[in-house]
Formats: sequence, structure tokens, C-alpha cells
Amino acid sequence: MRQVLRVIAAAALTVILVACAPEAGDSAGTDAAPAADTRTFEWKLVTTWPKNLPALGTAPERLADIVGEMSAGRFQIKVYAAGELVPAFEVFDAVAEGSAEMGHGAAYYWRGKAPIAAIFATVPFGLNAQEMNGWLHYGGGLELWRELYEPFGVVPLAAGNSGVQMAGWFNKEINSLEDLQGLKMRIPGIGGEVLERAGGVPVAMPGSEIFTSLQTGVIVAAELVGHYNDLALGLQEIAQYYYYPGWHEPGPAIEALVNREAWDSLPTDLRVMLETACRAVNQDMLDEFTARNATALRTLVEEHGVDVRRLPDDVLARFAEFSDDVLDETAATDELSQRILDSYRAFQGSVREYHAITEQSYLDTRAGVDG
Amino acid sequence: MRQVLRVIAAAALTVILVACAPEAGDSAGTDAAPAADTRTFEWKLVTTWPKNLPALGTAPERLADIVGEMSAGRFQIKVYAAGELVPAFEVFDAVAEGSAEMGHGAAYYWRGKAPIAAIFATVPFGLNAQEMNGWLHYGGGLELWRELYEPFGVVPLAAGNSGVQMAGWFNKEINSLEDLQGLKMRIPGIGGEVLERAGGVPVAMPGSEIFTSLQTGVIVAAELVGHYNDLALGLQEIAQYYYYPGWHEPGPAIEALVNREAWDSLPTDLRVMLETACRAVNQDMLDEFTARNATALRTLVEEHGVDVRRLPDDVLARFAEFSDDVLDETAATDELSQRILDSYRAFQGSVREYHAITEQSYLDTRAGVDG
Repeated sequence: MRQVLRVIAAAALTVILVACAPEAGDSAGTDAAPAADTRTFEWKLVTTWPKNLPALGTAPERLADIVGEMSAGRFQIKVYAAGELVPAFEVFDAVAEGSAEMGHGAAYYWRGKAPIAAIFATVPFGLNAQEMNGWLHYGGGLELWRELYEPFGVVPLAAGNSGVQMAGWFNKEINSLEDLQGLKMRIPGIGGEVLERAGGVPVAMPGSEIFTSLQTGVIVAAELVGHYNDLALGLQEIAQYYYYPGWHEPGPAIEALVNREAWDSLPTDLRVMLETACRAVNQDMLDEFTARNATALRTLVEEHGVDVRRLPDDVLARFAEFSDDVLDETAATDELSQRILDSYRAFQGSVREYHAITEQSYLDTRAGVDG
Repeated sequence: MRQVLRVIAAAALTVILVACAPEAGDSAGTDAAPAADTRTFEWKLVTTWPKNLPALGTAPERLADIVGEMSAGRFQIKVYAAGELVPAFEVFDAVAEGSAEMGHGAAYYWRGKAPIAAIFATVPFGLNAQEMNGWLHYGGGLELWRELYEPFGVVPLAAGNSGVQMAGWFNKEINSLEDLQGLKMRIPGIGGEVLERAGGVPVAMPGSEIFTSLQTGVIVAAELVGHYNDLALGLQEIAQYYYYPGWHEPGPAIEALVNREAWDSLPTDLRVMLETACRAVNQDMLDEFTARNATALRTLVEEHGVDVRRLPDDVLARFAEFSDDVLDETAATDELSQRILDSYRAFQGSVREYHAITEQSYLDTRAGVDG
């Protein structure tokens, strides 16, 4: 009987192996798939955004959904808004330490880690969204970004872009550089430094405090993102002038951050899913901003009578000079920073010539023939 | 003994079920993943592109690689260049009939199926790449595209974009509308119809015949894609003038086509992988063109001394008028075509106002401050 059982057990094992082997597909499939890696992964993703902030806050939720669906539940990412697990400005540290496997934010928030990091978000008078994606993915930008974050054990990926923003909301007319003297404005990053050199007073505050601060006169001006988000915040109710163009944020890259050990622990299929989902969300956010900002602009002008104005040329020219100075000084601090700035500027020089006869010339031509 | 065997068989079945259940992960995973769908799918993807044509022909290869990696081999897509399985212009039919599950091409090749289809590739003086993606994914464009292809049993997805192209290579100076009279030019789609109304002679020919036709004077002008591809074809060796802007192709969407039954046969995870990979490739192609066109332009100008010129304003203005006429006539043929054109124009009207104060204003400002 023991002998019989042993034979039956061996037979049963064979049945198990056969039953567990992937079946050939009912399509044209003939080869069996390799044995599937069935481990599951549950990750935390912390963000710098308020819960459900349009496009910026919803993008990581979309990322998590896509990865969950592609992996049939093997890879689950739970998204935490700013403050739910860690405050907005502690996202980088949380990912570096591994208390969250992922983050979603923008590189100019991490200037305390590396001043040059801001380049990987946006640079005044720098690359727009299309150009930024060209630099990151075909101009060596992503490799430099990873080199910069490597000592922190963090892997960055592009995962969103807002397109060209607005210069901001002002409760004072800006007709010359004189009008900027002592002007208190909520504006972060390199743009804030540039404003300071031009005589203004940049103020750092989370988006949630902008409305009250503008209303009470604590600040006289503020920039946030663009029409879609600004309308949602109701800034048109308490500010007089809406200035363009967004010289300070011409195409900010939004980033996904991944803890290096967590990244290395992923099997190849899940890692490629994560990379591919980031690329998809990277474009999807820009698509959403493009469509919804356009609609929001009409609402702001037609329903709220917003006064849309262009910053004077001499103000913009001076901003550009200061911006170059800030970048030069930032890059001079170490070899990698200089290498990053050199790569960025070389790409911009080349793509600017190209876009002068394509995107820029086309948009100007279209505006001309449309009358 | 038979009784014993029956008990053992039942026990073995239990063992099989337990053995086949996905294991809990060694990460933070605690829940077991749902039972994996292990069917395999092997698809054929036919394209309208020559083998390894830069960016256009390599994008579907990239798509296949990504899907193969994400599915750990469960979903394999084999890519066929134009002519390998079916000729370029039979790609749509092959996908409709199911002799290939997928295709990769551009919608203006299918005007024989539905004249309005060209809108889903590109429209003279229409949307650029960023705007096209906004319309398709957040402006109702993709839904209309799917409605148009539905009777053919074909599901379209956006899977690439070239950005603003060049107006083309000319062996004759274009200083006025007079210079276009009788001009033989290789230019497909709505652009070709517009040239014809302006007095020119559009000629249809595959990209592979352009070089010889220009060299021998069979045609006097030709447009293909842009710097990166044109340089690869060597057009600078046999044409005098390189005109801009690409009024006729301001942001052509490249499409992936999927046979409806094949689409419906996919389990959810593989379908989402396919959709996500298309979105990723959609952006990746534009990134590649942006970076490589910029480099190729420098090579064309600095190494080959190419004479880059802008088409005269009055020529462009007349092209715009004819383009509106062609679109109006095409849309008037049926209700769906009119609905598609109305949606496209409404989106363009709104996004044009928005980009006037963002992308367009920014590019002009940047060019100004850079001197």
C-alpha cells in the first residue's frame, strides 16, 4: 500500500506540474509562457500634492490604477496626499529612507539636497514640455538626473508636465521694473531667486495658503500652476490681473521617485510596467492640462472678466539675465552640477534653432492666417 | 483500493489547487494575487513604414518589446515592415479582416475608407502635437475616431507623433503663388488637395521613390517628415531649398490599429498593457523626433550648407483658405464627418486662445530675450 501511495503521489505531482504550466493561448499562441513570478508587492506612494488636486494630485492615482490593472493586482500602489503620511516637503526623505517606496512631486522642491535639482523640474526661459521630454529621454537628461539622486538612493522618472504656466496673479499693475521693488510674491524655485534679484520679495508658502494671503494683502502676487488649478482655487475672486507668459516655469517636469532598494526588488515585468506607466502618465497629465486649461481660460475671461496681461519686455529681459546668473552660480558649486547645466544648455541651444522654424514659426503662422 | 484511490485523487486535487495558488510576496505583500490568466497571445503587427525607418518604423518595434516585457512573454507582437506581409496601403484592410491583429500607420492613408479620417492624422493649419493629444485624450477626439473606424471592426489608438514638420524640399524658389503653378510635388493627404487648388500638381509616391524622382526632375518638390528622416534619405544632396513651416502637417498623430475581435479577446491586464504601451510610445516618438530633428537640422545647415527658407505669407494665407474649403466639403458628406470636424474646430478655437498666451507667447518671448 505504501508503494502504491508513493506511485500515486508521484503521479499527482506530475498532475500538479501539468496543471500549473501555463496553457497555450486560444489565439495563435503555441509556445507556453515562462513560469509567472507570482510575488505581490504593496507600495506606499507619498505626494507633495493636496488630495485630488486636479491633474497633479490625480496623476499618481492614475499611475497606481494602471499598474494595478496591468499586474492583475500583483503590484499595488497606495497613494497618500501631502500630510497624510508625511508633509509635502518630506517626500524625498521618506523615499530615500524607504518609509515609502515611491513619491510624486517636482525636483525644485529638493534644492536643499542639491541646488541644481531644480533644473530637472524647470528653468526660467528654459525648455518647454516637449523640449524637456526630448532632453530627458533622448538628450541624456534622465541619466544625469539619476546620477544626481544616486547618493540618496532614489531613482527619478518623469511622470507629468503642466506645459507653459502663467506668470501669476497680481494685485498691482506691472509696467516696469520699478513696480517690482518690494513686491511680495508667492513664487518658489529659481523664479523666486530671480524675483529677489530684480528687487522683489519671494515668499514661500503652500498652495493652500495662497487665497487668504492674497486676500488679506500678506502677499500682492502669487503664481500657482495655470488656469485649470487657479480657477479651482478661486484666485480670480481676489486678484485683479492675470499676467503671462510663464517665464519662470515654461514646462515643469513632474517626477516620480522610487527607493533604490524597492526598485531593485522588482521583477523585470513589474519594473517595466512601472516605467511604462510613468511615461503614459507623463503625457497624460500634459494632455489634461492642455485641454482643461484652454477651457478654464475661457471661463476666467468670459464668466469672471479676468484682466489678462503680458509682462513688459524690459521686465522679461531683466528676468532672463538674472536667471542666467543664478544658474551659473548654482552650477559652479561642483563638477556634476556644471555637467548638468552644460548638457541642458547645449540641448536648449540646438532645440531652440529647430523649434524656431517648426513649433514657434508654425504657431506664429497659424495665428497670422487666422487673423 | 478503488475507494482509496478516489480519496487520494481528491487529496491530490487539493494539492494541485494549493500549489497553483499564487504565493504571497516577500515584499510587504500579504494578500494573494488573484489567479493569473496564463493564456498566451501571439499577434502580427503590419506597418506602413519601411523596415527600421527612424522613429516611425522603430516605434512599433519598441511597442512590441515593452508589451513582451510587461507580460513576461504572455503577449508577443511580431512587427512586419511595409511589404513584408502586406503592402503599406493595405494595412487597414489587413487589420479589419484580421489577417493581422494590429497595424501601425497614419489615418490620412485611409481616406479611401472615410475621407474625414485624415483629421485623425493631421490638418493643415490645425493642431500641433501637444494640442492633438489634448483633443484625442481630453477633448472627445479618440471617441470620435473609434466611432469612425467601428464599422470596419478596427480600434484606433494614438501611438506616435512627429511634431511640426517641414514644408519640404524644393528645386525652385517659391516667392509667390505664381511659382506654384504646375509645380509637381510629392505631398499626400489634405495638403496635396490644397496644393492642387493653389495650381500645383500633387504626386503620390512612396518615400522610397522620392530621391530618384527629385534627382531626375520627375518632381520638383517633395515633403517627407522632417530633418531626422530627410537627412537619412539624403534629400539635401539633390534639392536646393528647404522650406518651412510645415503648414500641412503641424503635428501628425501616428496610429495603432487593432482588430476588434482580437481586442475583445484580450484579458483586462493585457489590454491595459497594450493601451499603456501605446501612450508611452506616443510620447516617446515625439521625444525622439524633438531631440534628433534638432541635431539633424544643425548637420544639414552646418555640414551640408542647406538653404533654409520660409514660405511667403501670401502663399501660406492662400493655403489656409483652400484648406478650410477642403475640410468643409469633406465634412458635408455625412453627419459623423461634420460632427468630427465641429469637435476638432471647437477644440482648436479654445486651445489657440490658450496657447497664444502660453506656448506661443513663451517661445516668442524666449527668442526675444535670447537676442
